[in-house]
Amino acid sequence: MPGEAEFIERIAALLGRSSDDLIVGIGDDAAVIRKSASQWWLLSVDSQIENVHFRREYTPARLLGHKALAVNLSDIAAMGGTPRFALLSLILPRDLPSSFIDDMLQGMMALADAHRVILIGGDVAASGDGLTLTLTIVGECPAGKILRRDGARPGDVIFVTGQLGLAAMGWRLLERGFRYAPHLSPPWRRLILAHLQPVPRLEVGRALAEDQLASAAIDLSDGLSTDLFHICQASGVGAVIDGERLPVARSVPPELEGDELECALHGGEDYELLFTVPKERLTHIESLRARFTALPITLIGEITDQPQRMYVEHRGRLLPLSPRGHDHLRDGKERS
Amino acid sequence: MPGEAEFIERIAALLGRSSDDLIVGIGDDAAVIRKSASQWWLLSVDSQIENVHFRREYTPARLLGHKALAVNLSDIAAMGGTPRFALLSLILPRDLPSSFIDDMLQGMMALADAHRVILIGGDVAASGDGLTLTLTIVGECPAGKILRRDGARPGDVIFVTGQLGLAAMGWRLLERGFRYAPHLSPPWRRLILAHLQPVPRLEVGRALAEDQLASAAIDLSDGLSTDLFHICQASGVGAVIDGERLPVARSVPPELEGDELECALHGGEDYELLFTVPKERLTHIESLRARFTALPITLIGEITDQPQRMYVEHRGRLLPLSPRGHDHLRDGKERS
Repeated sequence: MPGEAEFIERIAALLGRSSDDLIVGIGDDAAVIRKSASQWWLLSVDSQIENVHFRREYTPARLLGHKALAVNLSDIAAMGGTPRFALLSLILPRDLPSSFIDDMLQGMMALADAHRVILIGGDVAASGDGLTLTLTIVGECPAGKILRRDGARPGDVIFVTGQLGLAAMGWRLLERGFRYAPHLSPPWRRLILAHLQPVPRLEVGRALAEDQLASAAIDLSDGLSTDLFHICQASGVGAVIDGERLPVARSVPPELEGDELECALHGGEDYELLFTVPKERLTHIESLRARFTALPITLIGEITDQPQRMYVEHRGRLLPLSPRGHDHLRDGKERS
Repeated sequence: MPGEAEFIERIAALLGRSSDDLIVGIGDDAAVIRKSASQWWLLSVDSQIENVHFRREYTPARLLGHKALAVNLSDIAAMGGTPRFALLSLILPRDLPSSFIDDMLQGMMALADAHRVILIGGDVAASGDGLTLTLTIVGECPAGKILRRDGARPGDVIFVTGQLGLAAMGWRLLERGFRYAPHLSPPWRRLILAHLQPVPRLEVGRALAEDQLASAAIDLSDGLSTDLFHICQASGVGAVIDGERLPVARSVPPELEGDELECALHGGEDYELLFTVPKERLTHIESLRARFTALPITLIGEITDQPQRMYVEHRGRLLPLSPRGHDHLRDGKERS
């Protein structure tokens, strides 16, 4: 089976057509179509599939509902938009208790309400296979005010929100038998919740787009090395990451000590924003930080002119960095 | 597990919120949101799930791609809209050959091109379960010019396009071991193709909406008895169907003789349009028939004032008609 990037290219080549109303098609975090002269719509679809993206045994229903919506909102955040409407397509295993479905929908509703997103439709079917939630999100933005993957230029500085690798560490804990519970001590609970309950960075995304501060942006769903590679591919550039500056997890449980850098570089599902800023706009980062005091916004590297070449500087050495994050076609197996 | 209608009501109660931009929410064939003062968008999502909606052993890849898009276009047809954009979410079994994927996408592309629909995004994941195609369709229509389920009034006349029960008969043949092949004789081939390659009635739907001819409409996905019941529920009315007038299959293969009426009343997946017309607009039906000479448009009954009571007149007797078509939650089992 081909990798995901190759597959998406094949789909784009097969099915890609243009239209006056289509601003951005396949290949970014969301598609963009014209709503009016002054407004654009953003559209994105993403699935949470049992035994691929989650296991039912360790995923509380309420958090699953939250996450299925959160990962979709994150795509809208990565484009700098405001989410408005959602459509939900559900595939339900026949043994799923009604209470699980209710809790799942309530978790989804709580996040939807927090962002004033309205569920406007969907479909549902029972199946002998696992539980799947597919959400389509419709967002909007002022015309022209979007973040794309293809605008990074050599010399631009690379930033990331939040901390990296926490969700991957939480996933490792869950796979080793740890379970989410309110009484779990903070070092474990924080990592597990990073995996089960990601926070879409909608406000930061919107600020980056409105102020036209970022030259490129993406959300960290597949892992830093893979998502940075997507920006490099789309923009025709390379990148150098400063390994010492990466906002890796601190005070991790003993069983994960030593995994911090690996998880920060290649672990997926942090749903933080990765973005590039031209040097002449760097002074604006301070006002962004002043608006989002609770969220670290960290300079982690620089864009170079070597197409698709990525490096990480670590302890005085410059090491090649390959996209080793999650590929939904090649690596699906590891989680099933 | 609750039935589909009950489940959708629960979802609507849990997640339904209103907004100035939301014209029609959960519960019709598509959601309707405001694009501008003069234009509305239509949004709909529908899945084709292996061993629920199709079996891979008897579904040629090209026709599967066609059908996954066709059933979604049919929802737009039922609202009277014009489809514009699509998003595709794919769950691929790991053993699926690349050639199957290519053929599937080509079948989808052929139908998309025929209706000038552009694929603008999607996602893909590999899984250990079956093949699932989920499509989200964005359509548009002039503001106010839509077909809804809730406008049928007592005395309105009920019409249906095309013939009924063919897809259900084709499905019975496939389940009995018949396979699609170009050399198959016409009586078998026609029924099997009705199941594998439905035709969305977009032009008729648009004409019904533009001329404001129909008071209510729905596409026949779950079967006449169930889809008519949806109109009766939404409109608060009842219906009497004339069994003798139903456009049932003619010259069917010997193994299906006697199944015609049962399949026409309860068989799903014909994707024809069922619509109601106020008596004072009945004279316009002739001009509609003149525009669509190749497609039968048949008067099959009348709307009554008895809420949710449905009857079929057959050989001089008036028999109660229950919604016995497909329920995606209760009946999923029969096909897996």
